[in-house]
Amino acid sequence: MTLIQRTDCSALDATDPLAKLRDQFVLPSDVIYLDGNSLGALPRATAARVQQVLTEEWGQGLIRSWNTAGWIDLPHRVGDKIARLVGAAPGELVVTDSTSINLYKVLSAALSLARIDAPQRRVIVSERENFPTDLYMAQSLAAQHGMRLELVEQGRATSHLRDDVAVLLLTQVNYRSGAMHDMAAVTAAAHAAGALTIWDLAHSVGAVPVDLNGAQADFAIGCGYKYLNGGPGAPAFVWVHARHVDRVQQPLSGWHGHAAPFAFTSYYQPAHGIARYLCGTPPLLSLAALECGVDTLLAAEPLGGMPALRRKSVALTDLFIRLVQQQLGAHKVTVATPIEAERRGSQVSLIFDGDGYAVMQALIERGVIGDFRAGDRARGDPDLLRFGFTPLYLRHVDVFDAVAALREVLDGGIWREARFARKAAVT
Amino acid sequence: MTLIQRTDCSALDATDPLAKLRDQFVLPSDVIYLDGNSLGALPRATAARVQQVLTEEWGQGLIRSWNTAGWIDLPHRVGDKIARLVGAAPGELVVTDSTSINLYKVLSAALSLARIDAPQRRVIVSERENFPTDLYMAQSLAAQHGMRLELVEQGRATSHLRDDVAVLLLTQVNYRSGAMHDMAAVTAAAHAAGALTIWDLAHSVGAVPVDLNGAQADFAIGCGYKYLNGGPGAPAFVWVHARHVDRVQQPLSGWHGHAAPFAFTSYYQPAHGIARYLCGTPPLLSLAALECGVDTLLAAEPLGGMPALRRKSVALTDLFIRLVQQQLGAHKVTVATPIEAERRGSQVSLIFDGDGYAVMQALIERGVIGDFRAGDRARGDPDLLRFGFTPLYLRHVDVFDAVAALREVLDGGIWREARFARKAAVT
Repeated sequence: MTLIQRTDCSALDATDPLAKLRDQFVLPSDVIYLDGNSLGALPRATAARVQQVLTEEWGQGLIRSWNTAGWIDLPHRVGDKIARLVGAAPGELVVTDSTSINLYKVLSAALSLARIDAPQRRVIVSERENFPTDLYMAQSLAAQHGMRLELVEQGRATSHLRDDVAVLLLTQVNYRSGAMHDMAAVTAAAHAAGALTIWDLAHSVGAVPVDLNGAQADFAIGCGYKYLNGGPGAPAFVWVHARHVDRVQQPLSGWHGHAAPFAFTSYYQPAHGIARYLCGTPPLLSLAALECGVDTLLAAEPLGGMPALRRKSVALTDLFIRLVQQQLGAHKVTVATPIEAERRGSQVSLIFDGDGYAVMQALIERGVIGDFRAGDRARGDPDLLRFGFTPLYLRHVDVFDAVAALREVLDGGIWREARFARKAAVT
Repeated sequence: MTLIQRTDCSALDATDPLAKLRDQFVLPSDVIYLDGNSLGALPRATAARVQQVLTEEWGQGLIRSWNTAGWIDLPHRVGDKIARLVGAAPGELVVTDSTSINLYKVLSAALSLARIDAPQRRVIVSERENFPTDLYMAQSLAAQHGMRLELVEQGRATSHLRDDVAVLLLTQVNYRSGAMHDMAAVTAAAHAAGALTIWDLAHSVGAVPVDLNGAQADFAIGCGYKYLNGGPGAPAFVWVHARHVDRVQQPLSGWHGHAAPFAFTSYYQPAHGIARYLCGTPPLLSLAALECGVDTLLAAEPLGGMPALRRKSVALTDLFIRLVQQQLGAHKVTVATPIEAERRGSQVSLIFDGDGYAVMQALIERGVIGDFRAGDRARGDPDLLRFGFTPLYLRHVDVFDAVAALREVLDGGIWREARFARKAAVT
C-alpha cells in the first residue's frame, strides 16, 4: 500500500465538512489530544456560561434562580438535548448523578421488573472486561437480590442467554479495546431469550450513532464527561424505555424524583416518567457546563449530525491504524481494537511488547496525550495504550503527527529513560 | 421592654468582631438575604477559582489534571476542611454525591451493622417532620430490608427507643421549625437503648458547632450548598465513626470507593476508611466551588471559629424574635421556632394567620429574601415563613430592616395584592 504522507492528511482536512467544529473548543496549542474518550476537551462557550451561572444566577439571583433561571428544569432540558444523540424521545432521558449511581438505579429497576415478569430468572450476565464500576454495582445488587452475576468473555454474551438470565448488562463500546456491540442485534437476541438489556453508553454517546428506541432497548445510562465534553465529573444520564418506566420504582427515592417534590410530603410517591430517576439536588455548575458540551455535538446537526461525525471518526481511526501499520512495523506493536470499522467505537488501543506506561509518558511529554490502561495480570489481559479520536476537534494531521511522535519514542528507545518509569496510577 | 432602634443595631455592627467576614461574599446591593439556610451566598473567591479549574486545569491540563491539579484528592481535601467544622478527624469525612445518596449509603451501612450486632432490631425511628428525602430513602431501605420505619413527633424520638429499634435517623436542626436536637444527649440515649444514630447535618454544618466524635455519633451526612456556601447543588459529605467504618460495606459500590480504583479489577474490594463511601467521578466544578464556600467558614477560625459564629447567630436570631414581638404585635404572627437559643439552629420560622405565600412574595419584592414552606395539610402542619441568619454575612441592621419590611407588608395589607397570589411551587 502507498505510504501515507502528511500532505495527504492536510488535503483531507482542507475538504473536511466538519473542520469548523474544532473552533468550538479551547485546546492547548502544544497538544494533540487523544484522550477525549476519558475527559472531553473544554468548549469555548463553557467558561462564560459557568461564569454567568456563578455571578448572575447564583450571585445575584440567589435562591430565586431555581425558578427564574430555570435551574429546576435543567436536568430535563439537557436530557432532551442528549436524547437527540441517542435516539430517545423528548422527556425520556434525564441528567442526574453519576454513571455508577444511575447504573444502580436501572439495574435495580430491571431486577424488579424481572421479579414481576419472570421470577425464575436469577442471573445477570455481563462481560468480564466491562468497565469495573458496572461490575461492582452488579455484584452489590446481585448479592442484595440473591441473584448471580455471570461474567463472560467480551462479545460472547448472546451465547449465554439461557432461560435463567434476567438481565444482560453491557457497555456498548468497551473502554479498553474499543470493541463495539451491535445494539439492535444484541437487544433482539436478549429479548428473544426473554432477558432485559441495560446499555452503558459511556463510550458511545457523542462518539457513534445510537438509536435506543430503534433498538427497542430497555434501559440505558451514560457519561457526561467523555465525548459529551461536559467537564471533569460532569453529571451522567439515564433513559428507560417508555414501556417500562412507570412500572417499577428505583430504590434511590430522593426528593427530586418525587411526584410533587415541593409539597414536602412524608411519603414517597414516584414521579411519572423518567423524572422518578432523579434523586437529590443536581450540581448546577457541572450541569450547566455539561449543556455547553452537549451543544458542541448538536452543532453538527446541520452538517449531518452523528452519522457525519461517525464517518469522520471512522476515517480518523482507520487512518491511525494504517499509519501504525506503515510506520511502526519495526516495533512490537499490535492493534487491540477491531480492524473492521463497524465493530469499533471512536478509539484505538495498541498493545506494546515492553513498558507501555513509559511509552505513554514519553508520548505525553511530546504533547500527544492518550492514556495507559494496565491489564489485569490475574486475567492475563494485556496492558493497553489507548487513543481516543474525537471527530469534533481532531484533524487528520493530528493523527499523522501522533503516530510520528510515537515512532520517534519507539525508534529512539526514548521510553527507556528513567524519568518515564511508573510512579503512580493515572486515571 | 425597651423598643429596639435601628441605631442600636448599627452600634452592634460597629463592634461586631466578625463583621469583616462579610467582605468574603458578593451580595446583591438591594437584597437582605435570609435564605442562606436553603442556598448560601456566593463567596468572592469562587468565580476565580472555578474559572481556574475551567480554563487552566481542564482546558490546558486536560486529563493530566487528575494528578497534576490534585483532582483525585479533592473529595478528601475538602472533606478534611469540613471535618474541622463538625468535630471529625482528618481522613474521617469525604465529599461525594448528594445528601440523599449519602443517606442511602449510611442507612444501608447502619442496617448492615445492626443485622450483625442486633438482628432482632427491626425498626428505624425518625421524625414525621424530618426532611422528606430522608424519610423517602428510609422508606426504600426499610422495604428492602424487611424493616419498619416508625415516624414520631418532633423531639419525641428518645421516648420511642425500645429494644426493637436498630437505627435512630434524625436531622439535627429541623428544616421547617429550626428546632435543634442536643446531639450528645440524644446519641447517648440511643446508645443506652442499643440503637445506632444517623445525623443529617444539612441545617447544622456551618451554622452551629457540631462535635461528632465528642458525641460518639455513629454516622453523619450533610449538605454543601446551605451554610457551607458551596453553590447550587454542591456535593454533599459523609462521615462514619472510626469504630464502624471498616466493619461493613455500603451498597453503592462504585469504582472511586474501591481499594485500588485504578487497578480496574473485576471484583469490588472496598477501600479502607471513609473512602469506601465514594462512588463515581465527582463533579469537579461544583466540588471546587464548595471548597471556596467551606473556606469562608474556616476564615472565622482566628476569630473564634464556630463558637464565635454561633454567638453571633444567636444574637441575630434573638434580635429577630424580639423585633417580631415588638413590631408585629398587631398582626397574627407567631414564632414557630424555639425561643430558647440552645434549642434552635440558625433560622427562625414564623406562622402567619393568612396567606403566608403572598407575604413572602411581597417581602421578596422588597428585597428581603426568606422562603415559604407550605405545611402538609393532611398532617395539620402550619405554613411557615422561614428566615435563615448566616452570621458570616448578615448584619444586625439587616435584621432590623427585614422586620421593618415585613411590618410594611403586613401593616399596609400589601400581601393581599393579586400579583402575590400563589402560582407555582418554589424550591
